[in-house]
Amino acid sequence: MRDFNEFNITDAVIERFGATPNPRLKQLVSRLTAYLHDYVREVEPSFEEWLLAVQFLTRTGQLCDEARQEFILLSDVLGISMLVDAVNHRLPDGATETTVLGPFHVDNAPLLENGADMSPGMSGEPLYIEGQVIAADGTPLEGAMVDLWHSDQDGFYDVQRTDLVGPIGRARVRTEAGGKFRIRTITPSPYPIPYDGPVGDLLTATKRHPWRPAHVHFMIAHPGYETLVTHVFDADSDYLDSDAVFGVKNSLIREYVRHEQGPMPDGTPVAGTWRHLQFQFGLKSRE
Amino acid sequence: MRDFNEFNITDAVIERFGATPNPRLKQLVSRLTAYLHDYVREVEPSFEEWLLAVQFLTRTGQLCDEARQEFILLSDVLGISMLVDAVNHRLPDGATETTVLGPFHVDNAPLLENGADMSPGMSGEPLYIEGQVIAADGTPLEGAMVDLWHSDQDGFYDVQRTDLVGPIGRARVRTEAGGKFRIRTITPSPYPIPYDGPVGDLLTATKRHPWRPAHVHFMIAHPGYETLVTHVFDADSDYLDSDAVFGVKNSLIREYVRHEQGPMPDGTPVAGTWRHLQFQFGLKSRE
Repeated sequence: MRDFNEFNITDAVIERFGATPNPRLKQLVSRLTAYLHDYVREVEPSFEEWLLAVQFLTRTGQLCDEARQEFILLSDVLGISMLVDAVNHRLPDGATETTVLGPFHVDNAPLLENGADMSPGMSGEPLYIEGQVIAADGTPLEGAMVDLWHSDQDGFYDVQRTDLVGPIGRARVRTEAGGKFRIRTITPSPYPIPYDGPVGDLLTATKRHPWRPAHVHFMIAHPGYETLVTHVFDADSDYLDSDAVFGVKNSLIREYVRHEQGPMPDGTPVAGTWRHLQFQFGLKSRE
Repeated sequence: MRDFNEFNITDAVIERFGATPNPRLKQLVSRLTAYLHDYVREVEPSFEEWLLAVQFLTRTGQLCDEARQEFILLSDVLGISMLVDAVNHRLPDGATETTVLGPFHVDNAPLLENGADMSPGMSGEPLYIEGQVIAADGTPLEGAMVDLWHSDQDGFYDVQRTDLVGPIGRARVRTEAGGKFRIRTITPSPYPIPYDGPVGDLLTATKRHPWRPAHVHFMIAHPGYETLVTHVFDADSDYLDSDAVFGVKNSLIREYVRHEQGPMPDGTPVAGTWRHLQFQFGLKSRE
């Protein structure tokens, strides 16, 4: 086949993918071709616009390294990450809603005892987190692995700070009897997603801000259940209605209750105010 | 707005782009969001598939440098480059059809006299190119700048060869009276697009070959006319019906006529066979 024009080229490209052995890959590339071609036919990009898109994608790839994933950011700000999350997590009643993983998770954070301080020496309003992990049917899940991470009071994760020896502000803890866990830390702040690259240029050109509301990330795993990736947002935070990555769900917003004086529930003394976050996490069975 | 789900998130993202000052940019990002979200809703990529896509795009960006543009290759093999070309070149009768620029053009190739040899010392069957540049209404265009480039007999461009001091196999020449130009060179071969990167992996996984039929590239500029970017394909070449980048059009295929002995039309002696390509190029007025 030759002599392609704007009307027949889409079928020609899809036909060229016709011998793909893996049927799922064949579906993914064929339908991607169809959608991208429809987009081009509708908006009719000029050659210069096409070249700008090529350059934008190139810069996005070249900014990626071990500490930064600019294509995930791009997926996030286009709402694609949350949409992929949504189509993969149609949840039963009782299961906690999910949200984006984000670019700041680190594998194998320190495994701490219940009640330990996961942010020793860091400045900020103390935060006492108490959680319970249950199955969607209400059964408490002992021995679940709870992975937590959050920004500091200036809005930075440990991996973004060159003045810190991490990991800090991140930990893993196992649930005890009754599915309960507790940890001490500091209260996170809202923060901007990194905006000194092409994704930041896109936000600037479209008059969008890069901020996310304050939150703690949780990833919770237990055999026989789907691993839960979610956040719990601070109900007092700014940006709950304009999260740059569209990650906020009402069911994930909690009051981080402020107390005027200590001690904290485990008896730890506190000099000034402190906050208390309690949340029950429901896991979806793999069945 | 919060609490996004797979049905309302698309409108939410598009609304977030609502304050974009440039109306064209607003259209491009809003409609891209709509098409990509529709794709995700249809194929429902798993988290693992989404991550593979992120990694594929990252590798594609990281392979780009001054000598290689892997995102242009990706656009080419998905037929997007030819589609963008098609929607930008709805041509009047008499105008030569266009095709992809490709990744091997170099600015400011040597400006040669008519009749010069643009591939001195290179091995291959000699090729004598005679062209005429006219307006779509038939008026000959004297003084047009004709930029030519092509692969060698092994299928490589000068910029791909580390054993060559280029530029060679590329030149610019101005049309004389009557819009005519002529140049001596060697006959190009079919060649594979670079397939040692992510685009090559995509072709392999989908059982597609990376070959392009033999051709000479032409870019022709003249004040008052749209710059013409095209190829002339060798009618005897393999792959005319399966060009990896969908660039072949029937009107751009010509016989590179083989002659058993010399001399060439300008009197240049030839030891063995040589070939003769003649083509008339029609430019579209900017009006």
